[in-house]
Amino acid sequence: MVKTIYLDNAATTLVDKRVIDAMLPYFSEKYGNASSQHILGLEAKRALEQSRDVIAKSIGAKSEEIVFTSGGTEANNFALKGIIWSSGKNHIITTRIEHDCILNSCKWLEKQGVKVTYLDVNYEGFVNPKEIEKAITKDTAIVSVIHGNNEIRTIQNLEEIGKICKERGVLFHTDACQSYTKVPINVKKQNLDLVTLNAHKIHGPKGVGALYIREGIDITPLVHGGGQEKKLRSGTENIAGIVGFAAAVRLTRDKDVRKIKELRDKLIEGILKIENTKLNGSRINRLCNNVNICFNNIEGESIGGYLDAYGICISTGSACSSQSLEPSHVLKAIGLTPLEANSSIRLSLSRDTSSEEIEKVLKVLPKIIDKLRRISPISI
Amino acid sequence: MVKTIYLDNAATTLVDKRVIDAMLPYFSEKYGNASSQHILGLEAKRALEQSRDVIAKSIGAKSEEIVFTSGGTEANNFALKGIIWSSGKNHIITTRIEHDCILNSCKWLEKQGVKVTYLDVNYEGFVNPKEIEKAITKDTAIVSVIHGNNEIRTIQNLEEIGKICKERGVLFHTDACQSYTKVPINVKKQNLDLVTLNAHKIHGPKGVGALYIREGIDITPLVHGGGQEKKLRSGTENIAGIVGFAAAVRLTRDKDVRKIKELRDKLIEGILKIENTKLNGSRINRLCNNVNICFNNIEGESIGGYLDAYGICISTGSACSSQSLEPSHVLKAIGLTPLEANSSIRLSLSRDTSSEEIEKVLKVLPKIIDKLRRISPISI
Repeated sequence: MVKTIYLDNAATTLVDKRVIDAMLPYFSEKYGNASSQHILGLEAKRALEQSRDVIAKSIGAKSEEIVFTSGGTEANNFALKGIIWSSGKNHIITTRIEHDCILNSCKWLEKQGVKVTYLDVNYEGFVNPKEIEKAITKDTAIVSVIHGNNEIRTIQNLEEIGKICKERGVLFHTDACQSYTKVPINVKKQNLDLVTLNAHKIHGPKGVGALYIREGIDITPLVHGGGQEKKLRSGTENIAGIVGFAAAVRLTRDKDVRKIKELRDKLIEGILKIENTKLNGSRINRLCNNVNICFNNIEGESIGGYLDAYGICISTGSACSSQSLEPSHVLKAIGLTPLEANSSIRLSLSRDTSSEEIEKVLKVLPKIIDKLRRISPISI
Repeated sequence: MVKTIYLDNAATTLVDKRVIDAMLPYFSEKYGNASSQHILGLEAKRALEQSRDVIAKSIGAKSEEIVFTSGGTEANNFALKGIIWSSGKNHIITTRIEHDCILNSCKWLEKQGVKVTYLDVNYEGFVNPKEIEKAITKDTAIVSVIHGNNEIRTIQNLEEIGKICKERGVLFHTDACQSYTKVPINVKKQNLDLVTLNAHKIHGPKGVGALYIREGIDITPLVHGGGQEKKLRSGTENIAGIVGFAAAVRLTRDKDVRKIKELRDKLIEGILKIENTKLNGSRINRLCNNVNICFNNIEGESIGGYLDAYGICISTGSACSSQSLEPSHVLKAIGLTPLEANSSIRLSLSRDTSSEEIEKVLKVLPKIIDKLRRISPISI
């Protein structure tokens, strides 16, 4: 069997062995419900609060400002719907390159009468903070801008946007699922009111995320019930998952970010040597782990299929919408034609990616592209 | 260290060793995102669908009628809010003994203009199906009745209620988190339109549940996004958790239910020998694993505290609301005075409970009660 080369870390990551070890006791001997008042319950509660501290500290927040959710998607839904429900205002400002969970929450809210401004981005994927400022009205409840985009990985200038929102008295939310632990996040410095985080993009388990909610912000729960998480997110807490989330955060290192960046650059340079290719997104302000390339006139799906046969896992667009044949809304937003968008693939690295793996990809990929270009009915 | 005797299985259960073993590969070598199109993604997708089959089969449903959620609380929120949003109707019928996630979802919907009828139950906790029939109006979207109550464990007659709802063209939802795998559920026989299930009450992991949604029912998602779960519940699926859920279901055995019932009866009989005690709920139609006893004039909290010192974990009321000092709404609904409600404790067994443990409790408990009655300022 061919050893898999996994370059789809933007979709999900391998759970770190040390994360699994941290989680295991909370399935077995420490299995209490954190709301129970006996010894097993208190033990679970302690683990919950220690994990909350870790997440809070990692973004410069207070522990009581972190609410655990079932993942990034729920946290993003909670942020937008919760603020619209609580604020009494009916306008959201966001961008055209948000994750589907922001865009589809917005679309649903629009059906309820909420107005949504979808701002354009430039060819590198940047939203212009001045456009945000212009779009703010007295009805604006919240501005939501993705930190590091999930497809092209452009890193937005949160600080500048946050400053504008603060000055204009509008809440600022960012979806930081892809950027978390890769780019520094500091809720104070960046004037963030709400931040979405999750575990499974950083070698933690699936099914766990968090929403940072700045102290004093009034937000309506998406999930009502027994009153867990300061009445903001009910349901028995997924202690093992939450402990795993915190363990994953504890394991992140700046040196890994640097290593990943070096490998990514090697990969980008190697791929761009192939004729008629183009890097999508920003060359500079780009998350450390992403390569998104347009191979003119070849179906990205076909490239993915061939790479898969070599044991190389990549994706076209984001995993969530990879079953759709529609061209990526993100690539279209940065100006690619539908054909160019469908000719693009995303390769995303992690700290587990080795130099040898990158070399292997750089050996295999040109051959595949060459073959596909020769047989492609649309090749130039 | 004293070995813990865990009699709080209605709050949560120990994850079965075999469930953990089933989950582990999905953290490590099989960690793909079920939406990815490569080999790791397809492997995750296969595990997801196999797990869905297991859950569906266990309640006589079709696989495509099962939507995975982050737990019972989310599934209950989804059922009520989702149906109200999609139906265009504005009336819910429920009972006074539902779990807080049903009651608090209803309270929130009431603020949005939805009308909710909260039906009384009798002294054993039964709702009268005729009362449901009487309460149905042309505006009624959904009837929601808990199958096996989480505190007193009364098992409602779903079949009869389901028949009424079907005849009257009203959707019928049941929260079966506590009854699942303990009492047979068959969505066809019981005329169920929506059923809430979860994993952590049946030796599966926390953070996973499901909502059965009968084919053809139109429901609005609570969580929008990438379109997972047939666009009904977005977010990267918690594959390890879902696989664990299915493994837990596979491990349930009727003989365990019989064993638990025997031990429960032994416990009930033993406790009722203590003077001035009363069983809360039904003696007959009662989930196999529950004992809920009122010890007149002693604080349940104090009994719990003393038992904890002996390494015996129990609860007063449900875990979710155990941090509240309010008397249980369920016990009040079956006619207990606030004082009686606060003098009650819940002991809940599992297949791990041994005869020796029950004997130990029956040895320790009378002494504690005797001591507390002697020092209690409110004792008679």
